[in-house]
Formats: sequence, structure tokens, C-alpha cells
Amino acid sequence: MGKKVVSIVMGSDSDLPVMNQAAEMLELFGVEYELDIVSAHRTPEKMYDFASNAHKRGIQVIIAGAGGAAHLPGMVAAITPLPVIGVPVKSSNSIDGWDSVLSILQMPGGVPVATVALNGAKNAGILAAQIVAANNQEVLQKIINYKEDLKNQVIAKSEKVKR
Amino acid sequence: MGKKVVSIVMGSDSDLPVMNQAAEMLELFGVEYELDIVSAHRTPEKMYDFASNAHKRGIQVIIAGAGGAAHLPGMVAAITPLPVIGVPVKSSNSIDGWDSVLSILQMPGGVPVATVALNGAKNAGILAAQIVAANNQEVLQKIINYKEDLKNQVIAKSEKVKR
Amino acid sequence: MGKKVVSIVMGSDSDLPVMNQAAEMLELFGVEYELDIVSAHRTPEKMYDFASNAHKRGIQVIIAGAGGAAHLPGMVAAITPLPVIGVPVKSSNSIDGWDSVLSILQMPGGVPVATVALNGAKNAGILAAQIVAANNQEVLQKIINYKEDLKNQVIAKSEKVKR
Amino acid sequence: MGKKVVSIVMGSDSDLPVMNQAAEMLELFGVEYELDIVSAHRTPEKMYDFASNAHKRGIQVIIAGAGGAAHLPGMVAAITPLPVIGVPVKSSNSIDGWDSVLSILQMPGGVPVATVALNGAKNAGILAAQIVAANNQEVLQKIINYKEDLKNQVIAKSEKVKR
Amino acid sequence: MGKKVVSIVMGSDSDLPVMNQAAEMLELFGVEYELDIVSAHRTPEKMYDFASNAHKRGIQVIIAGAGGAAHLPGMVAAITPLPVIGVPVKSSNSIDGWDSVLSILQMPGGVPVATVALNGAKNAGILAAQIVAANNQEVLQKIINYKEDLKNQVIAKSEKVKR
Amino acid sequence: MGKKVVSIVMGSDSDLPVMNQAAEMLELFGVEYELDIVSAHRTPEKMYDFASNAHKRGIQVIIAGAGGAAHLPGMVAAITPLPVIGVPVKSSNSIDGWDSVLSILQMPGGVPVATVALNGAKNAGILAAQIVAANNQEVLQKIINYKEDLKNQVIAKSEKVKR
Amino acid sequence: MGKKVVSIVMGSDSDLPVMNQAAEMLELFGVEYELDIVSAHRTPEKMYDFASNAHKRGIQVIIAGAGGAAHLPGMVAAITPLPVIGVPVKSSNSIDGWDSVLSILQMPGGVPVATVALNGAKNAGILAAQIVAANNQEVLQKIINYKEDLKNQVIAKSEKVKR
Amino acid sequence: MGKKVVSIVMGSDSDLPVMNQAAEMLELFGVEYELDIVSAHRTPEKMYDFASNAHKRGIQVIIAGAGGAAHLPGMVAAITPLPVIGVPVKSSNSIDGWDSVLSILQMPGGVPVATVALNGAKNAGILAAQIVAANNQEVLQKIINYKEDLKNQVIAKSEKVKR
Repeated sequence: MGKKVVSIVMGSDSDLPVMNQAAEMLELFGVEYELDIVSAHRTPEKMYDFASNAHKRGIQVIIAGAGGAAHLPGMVAAITPLPVIGVPVKSSNSIDGWDSVLSILQMPGGVPVATVALNGAKNAGILAAQIVAANNQEVLQKIINYKEDLKNQVIAKSEKVKR
Repeated sequence: MGKKVVSIVMGSDSDLPVMNQAAEMLELFGVEYELDIVSAHRTPEKMYDFASNAHKRGIQVIIAGAGGAAHLPGMVAAITPLPVIGVPVKSSNSIDGWDSVLSILQMPGGVPVATVALNGAKNAGILAAQIVAANNQEVLQKIINYKEDLKNQVIAKSEKVKR
Repeated sequence: MGKKVVSIVMGSDSDLPVMNQAAEMLELFGVEYELDIVSAHRTPEKMYDFASNAHKRGIQVIIAGAGGAAHLPGMVAAITPLPVIGVPVKSSNSIDGWDSVLSILQMPGGVPVATVALNGAKNAGILAAQIVAANNQEVLQKIINYKEDLKNQVIAKSEKVKR
Repeated sequence: MGKKVVSIVMGSDSDLPVMNQAAEMLELFGVEYELDIVSAHRTPEKMYDFASNAHKRGIQVIIAGAGGAAHLPGMVAAITPLPVIGVPVKSSNSIDGWDSVLSILQMPGGVPVATVALNGAKNAGILAAQIVAANNQEVLQKIINYKEDLKNQVIAKSEKVKR
Repeated sequence: MGKKVVSIVMGSDSDLPVMNQAAEMLELFGVEYELDIVSAHRTPEKMYDFASNAHKRGIQVIIAGAGGAAHLPGMVAAITPLPVIGVPVKSSNSIDGWDSVLSILQMPGGVPVATVALNGAKNAGILAAQIVAANNQEVLQKIINYKEDLKNQVIAKSEKVKR
Repeated sequence: MGKKVVSIVMGSDSDLPVMNQAAEMLELFGVEYELDIVSAHRTPEKMYDFASNAHKRGIQVIIAGAGGAAHLPGMVAAITPLPVIGVPVKSSNSIDGWDSVLSILQMPGGVPVATVALNGAKNAGILAAQIVAANNQEVLQKIINYKEDLKNQVIAKSEKVKR
Repeated sequence: MGKKVVSIVMGSDSDLPVMNQAAEMLELFGVEYELDIVSAHRTPEKMYDFASNAHKRGIQVIIAGAGGAAHLPGMVAAITPLPVIGVPVKSSNSIDGWDSVLSILQMPGGVPVATVALNGAKNAGILAAQIVAANNQEVLQKIINYKEDLKNQVIAKSEKVKR
Repeated sequence: MGKKVVSIVMGSDSDLPVMNQAAEMLELFGVEYELDIVSAHRTPEKMYDFASNAHKRGIQVIIAGAGGAAHLPGMVAAITPLPVIGVPVKSSNSIDGWDSVLSILQMPGGVPVATVALNGAKNAGILAAQIVAANNQEVLQKIINYKEDLKNQVIAKSEKVKR
């Protein structure tokens, strides 16, 4: 087994069904990852420790998901020098997802979060793999193949419905 | 001079013109306060220290203002046991204020932020005084007088425009 | 039994399932409360009497919940000198909750309402306890313990899903 | 001079430039009116007295304008049996007018407010005249003439730009 | 049977479940009404005839409901000199009701529509009765009684939940 | 001079600066057009006559622009069998343009309006030319050339800023 | 069988239930069409080929539907000289449809997309037929008949509910 | 001079003042970049060539900015295997920026775009540098220093306003 280079964290275990989709994509691309619950609002010290040390442990990219007033991605980005991918989760207390999206996307100058679509954890996994691929030809090739697969799936469906 | 019981913090000095309105109300009600810049995103350690210790220094209420993806009020509330009043500031990078409002208001269960209107620092100051007044008859009386003044101002204006 | 220091009011009995969550938190913190239906739109005189007299009866904080064009929290705040916590309820006639949120949050200068998240009555209960705790060490300690419990729950969940 | 049958009230003198447009339309239609500042949030007793007594003084329609968390139209409608026309004003503290609109429009079942467009006080004046015209043939004829004038103005402009 | 003084029209029979609530309120207040389907978009000539002649047939108020890009209330108001009450209906093709609300509420100066809440046909019925009551003491008294009933219902519910 | 095949109408002369951009594009493509003010709300009979007869006069496409609760495009589309292009205009009474957009775009099934961007009259002109080009090779060629020009302009700008 | 003059494309087979409604309308009007899946994001080369060649194959109008960040209609419009009708689809990953609507409607100057209502594929089919009818009297007559049918259906429903 | 590893593209030269902020950050971190105008809507072939070849030329990250119905970031992401950072630009034709944000953020599963805040090109530059730093210790150290500088700036400002 290779070294873990991507870390997936989420604010609550209720985010797990969404966030697992990021893990599945990393597995598809053969990128090693870790996954944990880290709450900015309920475990601020753990969050601080996690974000301070991730790059020292060899993590290259962090994926952070949260819903409502979602502070986890931005707070992790405030502390780590690593690129942070934010996944707005449409949690049960969210106003149609707008709070999750805006509180992750609209970060102030100096502290970026790479935000993906609402519940877009699948894309967060792909994006993390793309970042890892910057110096990993094997992963890059898998991404190129994946895009080719997407194309072929559409073409197969086209054959069925075309008229 | 009395002891400082309210702490006003803000994420950036660009929030100062708005946040000063909270200070002015506290002065009006004779409530001692401190004021500082504490950025969740740029000074996370200072933010943690501030929020961990405020109640130990005798602070009774915290007013926190920020704009855009505004994490300061919620992060302070995550750490302190004190009531936290959040002021959404319509900063230059905000989408019409919606990001500031939603990222302060929509806190998850367990970690409340008492949110006031967009740029409503004046009301944050009054609210802090009302909380202090819970065990301070002098401040309570000043609040009752203030409400009476508001009424009289409206009545005076009414006399001018009435027809 | 101690003296009732928090008053929970709501505009309609359909708000009860949400507003009961405030009551549950106050019970958890050992804060005595009363609960009633007071409609700004259907019982304006009762609302006026309630808001005029609450502080004279020893109430220290009012929690008011309502949905749609939600006027109860703001009208109570207009009349009482006490701090008022507003709970926007996503009622059946609401447009995705936006009307409830905006008609409680966006109070004019001079008349604050401490607004919590949509359906955030649980947080309203905690916030009321935090205000009571300003001069009640026992309640303050329970709030500190509650935050510790939140943390421990997250850590326990983390142990289960971590990989 | 005839009897005053329409009452125009507003929450603040800052609403006057908008609300005067209602008065101008009533003057155009020869409908007698009164105009005053009545704040639901700053003068709740005056508001209650006003709304309780208007129909006893011969008022047939009330026009109420306010901005932000605008409670005046709905609270007046809660108390008076008369039809109430609400004018959402885009006040300086409003979030693009949405708060004003939603807190006037989205009244619960049982307590209607006849809401017009944001800053639409001109239309509130016309609507009040239309209600008065229900048993006043002279005013009805003026309204018919007014609509004819609108048509002729458009036709005159059409002549200028047509090509 | 008295003369029909209120006319209820709607753009589609799918609006009937909502619009019937207006009819029920008029029956409660003893106000005679007619009810029909008149589509601005599918029967423009019928709509024009209806709106041109309503006031000649003794109708005093028109209630018009429609959903999506809802043009019926505004187009009827463009043609009739009578007061028009608009009911935004949350139809199946609507974007959360916003299109229905905005295309009825935001009428240009000169052509008012008295807009009620989304799906607020009940309030449209009450409002129509209030307009009829302007010169009908019997209906006015029924409205006063209705408000008294609303109050008593709330008080009865209060007795049950109060603690 | 050729026959007029496109008709540009707008609800108010205040829409003229925006709507003139449609005329300019038609001139560029050599498509003959007429232009007039036709208000659904102020001149409903003229609107009806215009929409009933346009296709009989040889008009092939109608461009209709309006703001706020914008009913002109939809009402014209209700009456004419011709394709109608709707231009939402951000008028002074509009709520950030949302009312104009939604009241033109969200037409019910059976009555389409081809909606372009807010204030997008330029695109309405191009779209009308594209429709005319369906059986006019000369216009089609001009459209192909226009797209080539757009490309060349971007390439020229690219040369200047590229680094 | 006549020549295919309308092309219906969509980004995913999940859009098919909505987009089939366009096909049904074209069949009703006797307009020949083709239908295929063409994804801007998954098959960009196919999309480019399709859009470059459609007008050379005799296609006169393109209907393109997509959801979320919906780029297919705009990208096809960027490449083809033909009129493009865009159908915003409320896909499972959409935020209440707003993303689909805005990413199709708000095209820059020079590249129009004729946008219809959210999920409004039925209207896209009618609009395409109206464009084809510009030089096809038979189709034009069918459109006139269709509008007559719409009217008669409403009148039949009116007979049932009228009272 | 090192090899160019980041490519900044934008849809129009009007986006340049915003997008230059990305370039400035890359210069600060010593990351070589190229910058060009590439329009998805006006130069689709150039866009295709650019996106197909960027990774072959040694580019590691692409930053793409656009406004309104902003298709450039998503279309580039559809074609390249590289990570794409999208910058929503609040262009003159945008509806308060919502169209730019949603048409970049809400990409379908399989095709991620790392979206930053509205006009957040500065953060796009930092994020690109963070991605480059994944295998470049020198850049990583500059990012760590940059965060330290942000902290020190806040502390310096704190010293001035603290009271």
C-alpha cells in the first residue's frame, strides 16, 4: 500500500453518504487517502491540530465537506498551506443548499477554498486526483482514461436513444 | 472605570466603520467594552486564544462581525461558553450580503450565534447591553429610557409631517 | 422549583414541534421556563400585555418563534426591554423559509432581535441559557460541560468511521 | 372639504419621499386622506390606537409603508377590520428590498395585506381610490379617465419613436 | 339571493383547489360571488371581454389567481377600473413560487394589483369582503366577528399547550 | 427597400435605449424591421390588434421587451402564431431584474416566449435574424460572417494582452 | 417522409423524459426531427462536429436541453449559425433549477440562446415549429389551429367549474 | 526563467482587471505563468486547441475566468485532464454575479471545476501556487511565509485599532 496523500474530512457523520463519493473516485484512480470526522464547531482543537499537521504527514490535498453555515473547509484552509477542496453538503438544516455553498465559496482574499458543486463530492475526488497527478504520470493516465470512459458511456447511450 | 464586560471583535479593519456603531451604543448605555481585530482566517491561533479565555477575563458577551464567508462569529461561538452576537457585514467581496448573513445565521444545532441584521452593529450593541442588563438594574433602566427616546423621536417627527 | 426566567412564545400551535426543542435545551441546563402561544396577528392585545409585563415578572430572556411574515419576535422586541431571541420557523405557507428568516432578522436600528437559524429552536434554547449564565455559575458550568459532550460525541463517531 | 376616507401611515420619515406618491394619486382622484408616521417598532401603543380606531373615524382604507423587517402593514391589518394596502419600501437597511417585500406579502391566513410593488406607493394610492370608488361613481369615473390618459400618453410617445 | 359583487377568476382548473379558499371565505362573510376560468394566455379575448365588462355587471372586486409567468391578474387590472386582488399560485411549473409572486406583485406605476401571499387565496377572499364592507355594515360586522373568532381560537389553543 | 419582416415592440419609451440594440443588429444583417411602443398594461387594445395582425402584414418574428412584471412578450405570444422573442429589461422599478426575467421566461406550456438575457436586446436582434435566415441565404451568410468577425476581434485582443 | 429540419439534443439520457415533450409537439405539427445525446462536457468533439455541420445537413433549428451548469445550448449556439432554443432542465444536481436557467439564459452579446421555461421542452417544440412555419404555410396553419384548440379546452373546462 | 506551469485564460479583455490579480499572486510566489484571452463562445476552436494541448506543453494548472453564462472554465475542464480553477467574474451583463457563480460551480459529476469566490482571482492565483507546491518545496515555503505575512498584517492593524 502506498502513502496516504489525500485527506477527506467532514463536519458530521451525516455527511458521510455524500463524502464517500470522493473516496470512491480516489479508489478508482488508485490514490491513497484517509477519512475522518473533524468538526470546526464541535472539535475546534482537533480541527486545528489536523490542519496544522496534515502537510507534515505527507498529505498533498485536503477535501473538506460540511453543510449549513459550513466553516470547516475555510477554517482548514486558514491553517494549512495545502490546497483545500470544499464540498457544500445540502444538510437537513440547510436553506436549499445556499448557506452551504456561500459559506464555503465566498472566502476572503488570501485564503482560497476550491469549491465544487452542491453535494459534488464525486468531483472533489476527481479534482484531488488531478492535483496529485501533477507529478504522478500513472494517475494522470488514469484520469485521461476516465474521461475517455465518460465519452464512451455517452456514445453508448446515444446509440440507444438516437432517432 | 468599570470592568470590561463586552468584547467587540471583527475580521478586518474594513469592518470598523460598521462595528463602531456597536461601541457607540455600549457607550450610550454605560457598558464597558474592549474592541479588537481578530481574524478567523488570518489569525486562527489568536482567535482560538481570544475565544478560549474571554469568559475567564470577565467578559460576559462577545460581539463578532465579519463579511463574505464570515466564519469569525461561528468559530468564536464554537470555543467560548459565552453568548456570541454575530454581525453580518456587507463587505466589498460579498454577493449583496447574502453570504455574510447565511454563513453567520445558519449555525448547526449546539452552537448558536445571535445574528442581527446585515450591517446591524448598532442593534448588536443594544442586544449586548440587554444581556448585561439581565443582572444590572442601572443598564436596564437606560434601555427602558432609550426605548422611550425612540418613541419620542418618532412622535416629534410625526408632528412635522402629519397632515 | 426555581423561578421562571425564560419565556418561550410562538405564533401558532403548528410551531410547537420546532419550539419544543428550545424547551428541551432549557430543561437540560436546568433553566426554568414558561411556554405559551401568543399571536401578533391574531391576539395583538395579549401580545402587548405579554411583552409589556415579562420583565416585571422576573423573565430575563424571551424566545419567540414564528413563520412566514413573522412579526411576533420583532413586535415583542419593540415592547420589552429584555433580550429577544427570534426563531424563524419554516411554516407550511413559507417560501422556502426566506420570508420567516428575513422578517425576523432584518429589524431596524434600535430594536434588535437575536436571530437563530431556520427552525433553530434548539440553538435558541442554548442561547437563552448562555444569557442566563451571565450571572449563574451553575448554568455556565453546564454549558461548558455540554460543549465538552458535543466534542466527545464527535470523537466517538470519528472512531467508528475513521479509515 | 370632504371627509378623510384614506389614511396613509409609514414607519419612518425616511419613507416619506416614496409614500408621498400615494398622497399625490389620492389628490388626483379627489379622495380626502390623512398622513402620519406610526412606527410598529418604536411607537407600538400609537400603532395600536391608530389601528383600533381608524374605522370608527370614518376611514375606509389604510395604506401602510415600511422597509426592512416591515411589520407595520401586517400589524395594522391584525388590528383593524379595514382593508390594508402594504407598500414595501426599499430602505437603506434592506437586502435589495426582499425583506421589505416578504415581510409584508407573506401574511398568514386570516390577516390579509394588499401588497403592491417595491416602492409602489403610487399604485397604493390608485388602489385605495379604486376601493373608495366601489360606492362613489365620481371617483370611479376619474379612475376610468386616468386609465384613458395612460393610454393616450403611450400613444403620444408611440408617435414619436415609431419607425 | 343577493347580487354577485365579487368575481373569482383563475388561469387554469389546476388553480381551483387553491382558489376555492377565496370562495369559502366569501361564503362565510355572506358575499355573493361568481367563479370562472379565464386564461390570459389561452383565451385572451374572453379575458378582455371579462375585464371590460365586470364593473358594468355590478362586480365590485375581482380576485385573479395564476401561476408561473402569471399575467392574468395584471392584464385584468390593465383593463378594468375595479380593484384587482392577485393570488400567486405555486403551480407545478413554478420555480418555488418566485415567478408567480414577482409577475403579479411588480406591476408598473398606474396599474395596481393587490397581491396576497403565495397560495393565499383565503386572504384574497377576506380582502375582497373587506372592500365590499366599505359600504356594507353587515359584512363589516362579520369581519369584526371573524377577527374575534381568530383570537378565541388562539386563546383556546393557548390553554392546551401553555405550561 | 425590402419588406419589414421583424417587429420590435416595447412597453415604455424608457426601454428604448436597450431595445435599440436589437434594431442595430437587424440593420447590420440587412433585415427590415418596424419599431413601436405597445403597452400590455396601458394600451391593451392596441396590443391585441398588433398581435392579431402582425403575421397578416408579413411580419415573421416579433421582438418584445419590457421590465418589472413584464407581460408584453407573453401576451403577444398568446395572440400571435409567430415566434416571439422576449427581452427582460432591468427597469427602474425592477428587483435586480428578477421580476423581468421570470415573468417573461416562465410561460406555461402551449405559449412559448424565446427569452434572451437581461437587457439582451442585441442578442434578440441576432436571434431574429437567425430565424429570418432559415429561408434567406443572404442573411445566413451575414450571420456566418458576423460570427467570424467576433472570432477575429477576440484574436486581435488576444494579441494585445497575451503574455 | 420529409426532411429533418429540427434537431433535438440533450446532455444526458436523464434529460430524455423532459426533452421528449419537444419531440411530441413537433410530431403534432408534422415537423420532421432528429434526436440525440450530445454532451458538451463528456463528448466535446461530438458536440463540435454536430454544431458545425447541422446547418449543412438541412437542419433549420436546434433544440438543446441540459441541467445544472448547462453549457450545451450556449456552446452549440457558439458554433452553429442556426437559431438555438435552450431548455433548462431541473436535473437532480441542480439548485432548484436556478443554475440550469441562468447558465442558459445569460449568454453574452453576440451568441443568443432562445431560452424557454424550466423543463419547458413542450414550448421549445412549439417554438421550433413556429420558426419552421416562417416559410411553411401548412405548419403555420397547424399552429393557428393548435392555439384555437388551447382556447377550446379552456372554454370546456370553464363550462364545468363555472358558478 | 523557469518553465510556464500555470495558464491563465479569460473569456474577454473586460475580465483582465480581475484576472490580473491571479497573475500578481503567481509572481509573488515565483510561479511562471502564461496569460491569454480564449473565448468559449467566440473562439471555440481556439478554446478546444488550448484545452487539448495545455498538459502536453507542461502546464500543470489552468485558471479560467468568465462572467454571465460563463462556460469557459467548464468547457476547458471537459477537455483537459489538468485541474481547472474557475473564477466567476461579475461582468456588466451579470445578474448580481449569480449567473457567473452558478454556471461555473454547478458542474456535473465527472467534470470538476475548482471554483473560487466571485471576482476571487487573487485566490485562484494562490490556489494554483498551492497545487504547484505539491511537488515544489520552494513554492510551499513561500506559501507558508505568505500566510505568516497575512497574520502579521492583521496583528499590525490590531495594534492600531485595539481599545
